[in-house]
Amino acid sequence: MNRITKLFNIEFPIIQAGMVWCSGWELASSVSNSGGLGIIGAGSMYPNILDSQIKKCKNATKLPFGVNLPLLYPDIDKHIEIIIKNKVPIVFTSAGSPKRWTKFLKSHKIIIVHVVSSFDFAKKCQNEGVDAIVAEGFEAGGHNGREETTSMCLIPNITTNINIPTIAAGGIASGKAMAAAFALGAEGVQIGSRFVASKESSAHINFKNAIINSNEGDTSLTLKELTPVRLLKNKFYDKIQNAYLKKSNIDQLNSLLGKGRAKKGMFEGDLEEGELEIGQISSTINKIKSASEIFDEIKNEFYLTLNNLNNLNIK
Amino acid sequence: MNRITKLFNIEFPIIQAGMVWCSGWELASSVSNSGGLGIIGAGSMYPNILDSQIKKCKNATKLPFGVNLPLLYPDIDKHIEIIIKNKVPIVFTSAGSPKRWTKFLKSHKIIIVHVVSSFDFAKKCQNEGVDAIVAEGFEAGGHNGREETTSMCLIPNITTNINIPTIAAGGIASGKAMAAAFALGAEGVQIGSRFVASKESSAHINFKNAIINSNEGDTSLTLKELTPVRLLKNKFYDKIQNAYLKKSNIDQLNSLLGKGRAKKGMFEGDLEEGELEIGQISSTINKIKSASEIFDEIKNEFYLTLNNLNNLNIK
Repeated sequence: MNRITKLFNIEFPIIQAGMVWCSGWELASSVSNSGGLGIIGAGSMYPNILDSQIKKCKNATKLPFGVNLPLLYPDIDKHIEIIIKNKVPIVFTSAGSPKRWTKFLKSHKIIIVHVVSSFDFAKKCQNEGVDAIVAEGFEAGGHNGREETTSMCLIPNITTNINIPTIAAGGIASGKAMAAAFALGAEGVQIGSRFVASKESSAHINFKNAIINSNEGDTSLTLKELTPVRLLKNKFYDKIQNAYLKKSNIDQLNSLLGKGRAKKGMFEGDLEEGELEIGQISSTINKIKSASEIFDEIKNEFYLTLNNLNNLNIK
Repeated sequence: MNRITKLFNIEFPIIQAGMVWCSGWELASSVSNSGGLGIIGAGSMYPNILDSQIKKCKNATKLPFGVNLPLLYPDIDKHIEIIIKNKVPIVFTSAGSPKRWTKFLKSHKIIIVHVVSSFDFAKKCQNEGVDAIVAEGFEAGGHNGREETTSMCLIPNITTNINIPTIAAGGIASGKAMAAAFALGAEGVQIGSRFVASKESSAHINFKNAIINSNEGDTSLTLKELTPVRLLKNKFYDKIQNAYLKKSNIDQLNSLLGKGRAKKGMFEGDLEEGELEIGQISSTINKIKSASEIFDEIKNEFYLTLNNLNNLNIK
């Protein structure tokens, strides 16, 4: 037991990231049933969809699971109502200030974790009474911070100076990286990309194949003028780069992004025009496996790595 | 003993990065005398200066030390001649292909290590017969790669797929980070920023103070069209950003950079117009200490971290 397994009442501190278009009840329940914490990504769901996803998840596992809620979501009041009504025990919030909802959710006995990409935001979370932090480095997929602080720099800064427990995210797809995160002071890891390429993820098979075929340097953090996002480079990415060359302003970038790009790419499998949010570590992911296989592989490699570290032969 | 301590014949696998304007014989000999590997940064030295620095270093330590040689240096033939004449046992090469000099240096029984920022380059090094690799993540200070691969992603990819030993660099300024690097499979760490802010470094006191006063987000990897470089944001950095806004071409960027900016900033202490090369981890460095204090602190925290990992209470 550590503070994270205790907080979530789980066996082993692997948390599956709640991601738009990729993490529905099938993935979340599989990870929870493996002994970690599965999370439903509410950011891409209408309220009625979220409601039915939560119900299906409850049917698929008796173990704790959570919902990830991007705080900028327009229908957030309805989402929160559904979460409370369904007695979801754990909520991960992201993309917004922890100030707005923390007290309210806690008054409903919900455990609240907030995703941050900077030390300053971690401090704010602690002050607001958040239960734990996800510290997400520059290498993480999807939306990210402007400071570009990498996991190696961000995590120890937070764990050394903040008291609430820290879950490391960004660049973690193996037991080695999980052990590294623990060396940096994290008490859990949140894993996204690796679970996107799982059998149970709701990502389109084209997207899963693009991940396992991706190479070093194939992702980029872009659109920093809007909300910075790390994505797999494709035709849509080239269009963004072109827009930059033409000195496009924020309105023009926004209109290029348009609506529905993330769904088109990740859920419908349009690898050219879609937005393919994924982490830098995708270049090391080579096979689509079941969530439980992934879970066990990481867990076993984590213990093996700890064992290796314990047998280092340097004085 | 591990492969790195054996290769260099040192006690403990901390390597001090050979950096322009910051690492002369005083820093290098202090680190070697502490039990690690000190490195003279030849990139900012005329041949006669390098010659006298090596001689002074030999007077200050009987233990092994090395020279870092950026392969793009114009007078490289003279540098190599001096290294051979002075029987320097170890050379770290960077900023260029390992192909050109590896065989020649090895024919003189010199141990050769090459600095890479990508997996592909690590593979090339292995094929060329380089003895070890420094794998340098996106967060590292100074010149860096275009792929932006962070330490958390780069190191395990290399250590899993490359056989020669790997020294991790980028984001490492503490024993926690050193333990993390070892979890990722590294057998040594190369530490730059932390040693720039040491008493023995030849950096100007203004630059050292700027480092210990820097905060999260204060560095940036820029000038990607020339040679990408991570530096502390200052007036010179603002000029670069302005040049980008004005769509300056490579010639214009080159002329803005001009000559002698690095010396002006790091050695002469001009914090406004100088180029201040430093890593992202500088935000966590808060005090100027002696190299041996830094060395011992990292070493002690490394063992403490391994001990903590060995006592993790999760099943």
